[in-house]
Amino acid sequence: MAQHTFMPTDKDYGYTFGAKMPLVHLRSGDVLSTYTEDCFGGVIKTVDDLPSQVCTMPYLNPVTGPFFIEDAEPGDTLAVHFLSIVPARTTGVSSTFPHFGALTSTSHTASLQPSLEERVWLYDIDVKAGVVRYRARLSEYTADLPLDPMHGTVGVAPGGFEARSSLTCDTHGGNMDTPELRAGTTLYLGVNVHGAMLGLGDGHARQGQGEASGVAVEVAMYTTIAVEVIKGVSTPWPRIESDTAIMSVGCARPLEDAFRISQHDLVGWTAELTGLDLLDAYQLVAQAGTAPVGNVCDPNYTMLAALPKPNLRGVAAYGGAHERLRSQPHSTSAGTGAR
Amino acid sequence: MAQHTFMPTDKDYGYTFGAKMPLVHLRSGDVLSTYTEDCFGGVIKTVDDLPSQVCTMPYLNPVTGPFFIEDAEPGDTLAVHFLSIVPARTTGVSSTFPHFGALTSTSHTASLQPSLEERVWLYDIDVKAGVVRYRARLSEYTADLPLDPMHGTVGVAPGGFEARSSLTCDTHGGNMDTPELRAGTTLYLGVNVHGAMLGLGDGHARQGQGEASGVAVEVAMYTTIAVEVIKGVSTPWPRIESDTAIMSVGCARPLEDAFRISQHDLVGWTAELTGLDLLDAYQLVAQAGTAPVGNVCDPNYTMLAALPKPNLRGVAAYGGAHERLRSQPHSTSAGTGAR
Amino acid sequence: MAQHTFMPTDKDYGYTFGAKMPLVHLRSGDVLSTYTEDCFGGVIKTVDDLPSQVCTMPYLNPVTGPFFIEDAEPGDTLAVHFLSIVPARTTGVSSTFPHFGALTSTSHTASLQPSLEERVWLYDIDVKAGVVRYRARLSEYTADLPLDPMHGTVGVAPGGFEARSSLTCDTHGGNMDTPELRAGTTLYLGVNVHGAMLGLGDGHARQGQGEASGVAVEVAMYTTIAVEVIKGVSTPWPRIESDTAIMSVGCARPLEDAFRISQHDLVGWTAELTGLDLLDAYQLVAQAGTAPVGNVCDPNYTMLAALPKPNLRGVAAYGGAHERLRSQPHSTSAGTGAR
Amino acid sequence: MAQHTFMPTDKDYGYTFGAKMPLVHLRSGDVLSTYTEDCFGGVIKTVDDLPSQVCTMPYLNPVTGPFFIEDAEPGDTLAVHFLSIVPARTTGVSSTFPHFGALTSTSHTASLQPSLEERVWLYDIDVKAGVVRYRARLSEYTADLPLDPMHGTVGVAPGGFEARSSLTCDTHGGNMDTPELRAGTTLYLGVNVHGAMLGLGDGHARQGQGEASGVAVEVAMYTTIAVEVIKGVSTPWPRIESDTAIMSVGCARPLEDAFRISQHDLVGWTAELTGLDLLDAYQLVAQAGTAPVGNVCDPNYTMLAALPKPNLRGVAAYGGAHERLRSQPHSTSAGTGAR
Repeated sequence: MAQHTFMPTDKDYGYTFGAKMPLVHLRSGDVLSTYTEDCFGGVIKTVDDLPSQVCTMPYLNPVTGPFFIEDAEPGDTLAVHFLSIVPARTTGVSSTFPHFGALTSTSHTASLQPSLEERVWLYDIDVKAGVVRYRARLSEYTADLPLDPMHGTVGVAPGGFEARSSLTCDTHGGNMDTPELRAGTTLYLGVNVHGAMLGLGDGHARQGQGEASGVAVEVAMYTTIAVEVIKGVSTPWPRIESDTAIMSVGCARPLEDAFRISQHDLVGWTAELTGLDLLDAYQLVAQAGTAPVGNVCDPNYTMLAALPKPNLRGVAAYGGAHERLRSQPHSTSAGTGAR
Repeated sequence: MAQHTFMPTDKDYGYTFGAKMPLVHLRSGDVLSTYTEDCFGGVIKTVDDLPSQVCTMPYLNPVTGPFFIEDAEPGDTLAVHFLSIVPARTTGVSSTFPHFGALTSTSHTASLQPSLEERVWLYDIDVKAGVVRYRARLSEYTADLPLDPMHGTVGVAPGGFEARSSLTCDTHGGNMDTPELRAGTTLYLGVNVHGAMLGLGDGHARQGQGEASGVAVEVAMYTTIAVEVIKGVSTPWPRIESDTAIMSVGCARPLEDAFRISQHDLVGWTAELTGLDLLDAYQLVAQAGTAPVGNVCDPNYTMLAALPKPNLRGVAAYGGAHERLRSQPHSTSAGTGAR
Repeated sequence: MAQHTFMPTDKDYGYTFGAKMPLVHLRSGDVLSTYTEDCFGGVIKTVDDLPSQVCTMPYLNPVTGPFFIEDAEPGDTLAVHFLSIVPARTTGVSSTFPHFGALTSTSHTASLQPSLEERVWLYDIDVKAGVVRYRARLSEYTADLPLDPMHGTVGVAPGGFEARSSLTCDTHGGNMDTPELRAGTTLYLGVNVHGAMLGLGDGHARQGQGEASGVAVEVAMYTTIAVEVIKGVSTPWPRIESDTAIMSVGCARPLEDAFRISQHDLVGWTAELTGLDLLDAYQLVAQAGTAPVGNVCDPNYTMLAALPKPNLRGVAAYGGAHERLRSQPHSTSAGTGAR
Repeated sequence: MAQHTFMPTDKDYGYTFGAKMPLVHLRSGDVLSTYTEDCFGGVIKTVDDLPSQVCTMPYLNPVTGPFFIEDAEPGDTLAVHFLSIVPARTTGVSSTFPHFGALTSTSHTASLQPSLEERVWLYDIDVKAGVVRYRARLSEYTADLPLDPMHGTVGVAPGGFEARSSLTCDTHGGNMDTPELRAGTTLYLGVNVHGAMLGLGDGHARQGQGEASGVAVEVAMYTTIAVEVIKGVSTPWPRIESDTAIMSVGCARPLEDAFRISQHDLVGWTAELTGLDLLDAYQLVAQAGTAPVGNVCDPNYTMLAALPKPNLRGVAAYGGAHERLRSQPHSTSAGTGAR
């Protein structure tokens, strides 16, 4: 097990999963400390920096990576455990964006209406107090929200010779935008190409379920992960494990398909772990499960299906990878100094 | 304020909202203790009682009511607070049902595949221990789930001369099937006809988010509610208030429309309560809100949009109706004796 | 066989299917000439009469009926053949309507954007020339479109004690808004209550596929129908037969479910008529079928699945009801004189 | 103007749009005769060759290309006119495929049901008679369907450094699977990268609207196209022009978004061509338009919005490119000899 540190320069960011050369080689069991830029590439500094003016397509949602994971082959699973995710700035950024978000017509849910006003909000991030402060733009209203740092975008290269925009998510992970991807959780991704080609970005100081406005509290992050390759075990859709639950991620439109995918995967996973017949597992998940909403704004929406661990009666998923990775020794001082 | 008790006989159940004569007249502020049958009409007693054989359409999902609420006129809001919801039996029932549920093709998401096997599960309900016990059918697996009694179906008569099946939900409430409708919460429904015509049924000892299998842990309930008419205040979609959050309910297909409706309503409600500009409220809800899933199986799906109360900085919704109703004195002994 | 004429007065219109007393009693084989008002109740006479100002909910989409059809019992099918549909005015009306239509956010596909401008268009209808003349409002542009009169709304009472708004469609028919429901076609509807309770309205001088703006070229109609009860044959979803094709109608949201319903019904119907195995019928429909779009704006969308009759190799649907009804003798002079 | 012929060998096929080196360089105005393999790579020769057994992912839907079009730069439009599309074999192939198609649960519309039976159908193709003969598998039933050759898959490289599977469609075209893409039509695609990188494949002897079974009558094709670069004119979504109509293509899930995209694009395009105000164009399209269904089975569904040309009063789209290209001289003998 080795401990790596990789701090990207501007030319190191990618805008796709697939079709980019790796930056660092890791081995199963290694720990990596790195930095991710915010989804706007860090160019929004004041409320007058409107995204549609200061950002240029396709240079949105920069991803740090890819990281080549030795031993990872198609058909394996890559476990990525988030040891720490720490905001790298004291200001977070959010905004509306023309014809993007859940409560506006969009490029796809197309209408003849003009777009909503484009507006930027800045949030004060106080890591020590664990607070993200919302401030209204047209009044003096403020609200202190719990800090809950997470990565919106984590993925591997897709298969089939594809390269997919970092703005979307699918079976390879990508821009899932779920608040469940916080420090202390393990993400499982099916490996499609040799080396897996892991990338991550899109840190959020927090986001609501659904990310209804299309943009979370965006901020650069210092992040430390531990990776493990689980050989010969395939994972059809992204899965997340926390200390208290197992979760399946469905990425799709319409939203009911994201729901169906996630529930279907969780039912099968539960049957496999418990030995339950498939319909018995369906019944258990239907009564005991929760369905945390990820995003309802991106090219693919995300829904999660979660089952509290007590229902598994002690069986460990993926041979106990989560337990192993969460106890990896690591420095917590990776993220120091504003950038 | 008067305390009423109404125990229905078989002929008192209805199968629609609208188009049925009222059973009891209540006044704003009154408390009512009543009983609801389970969604199968109580006919499933063993695992061999298959719903498609022992139930007859349209006699599914019996509703106790309607109750005529004096003073309730179109344009008002009816607040219904759940003082207690107590299972009336020690056994709950669940099942699959042919071509119904989230993980099967259905009458609408039609396919040429045969239906899943129809299977019944019985749950032991231990009210004192607060436990619902799942037991697999094809193995010895069991799991103890938290008891969390709720009503799947609560509604008023719709407007426009309509009568709607108790199996569906819409702006008038109805079969919302959300676990958030538990004791201690207040449901707000827009009044469409004189007297509101409140009805309720479909008790669940608990359900998972999404009710993926199409059927929760169904059980008859002893339930006590307090009602209040809020004059001159309209409510476009059902809303729920708990001690900790306000919630808007969207009932629709596809699921993203249920999401959009609920978020849209919550944003407008938040703006109204806080004085925030609409986009500022959108931003606050997007970062601070949660999106509890109701059902993804009924004729209309339900999504909730919830905002934790601290974000309202002390403003009370509907003039403090929730606080008033939750402190109504009431007997908790309504539900005694198995039926 | 009897020939009836019924001209409604203002108090004869209904706004639901179900929950209204019948106006006329017909017998199987009878012919009825009647009149339907336009969807706005005839109150829009100039481009300055904005629907949201001159119309009052729920008094939209008046339906002439219901007509009680003797012998029609639940489980039977009612065949309604359109012998003639003739515009009763020389001016048709269309409009945008706030937050209604396919290219705007709506009450359900909710957004925070203001509604599109409400605007009225008047069309010249020339029955002899077979032309409907479009005239732009903000320029001198005109276009002559083929006159193609049809009824947007035709239905029977739903089952399950329901009464449904005339603005929506479902298994009972209703506001299907498909251009395929023109003179010369036969509509088959499953009977849910004794007497069927047939109603019709919402005449269109023509409409595009999808009715994207939410409103067709609306006009009152003189219409003559012939009805027949097909005993002991149930029809799960509305079906239409023309001289050249059989068609199944799916009414649902989302649009893919309307598609699935219609294709599923047509595959089953085709298998039944041809003796083909279900998968063989699926294959035939998939290669030979068309999918005419009805509406993509109403509470339920409609898609049709159509199979050209040559693929049936001479087999007649519903025992030849279409052939029988289309040759019913009838006066074509029912509609004379502007109203 | 030059006339090219390119006959691919096995190693020339691609499985993505983007990320593949060009095979031939063309100039604006050139004519190209080429060959495309069927979507199964030509390996299904008998009804016993089941696709899931004889095909290997991701080697499905081979695309001939890409072709580098000189002068095509991002922001331009590439016009591709189909001068001829001729089946290269006398047998066409169709099938069901496990968990794929409109009338089955799928990987995304996931259910716990087993898949439908996998079955292969062979069709006799008689080019001279213009007939495709359907033959049932479980009975002697046959039906002669009109031959209507088309390409399911035609596209350019997407932008944003992406490479997309040939199985899906989007703004770059791709697997649109619309029967409207037949000989005599011109396809307009926005150019995203230098050279456009045009590819085509997936010939169908015919398909029904919706391609409900997931597979059309698949056959290799001899195809001749003429290309033209329209400088400085961007095209946001694929568009098709025939001698009688202009059409916009929407590629998306859910199906209503495909509908909205196509209608929205057609309304804007119509406004641009006619000088109509946007709402006036919306009104015209809503009454005069049709909505031909493409596919309702692929990763993105396709809907077309079409406006008959008489409504344009003589204005030519894209400066008359369709008229110019359709009169390109070309040999019709490209496709001779079975392969």
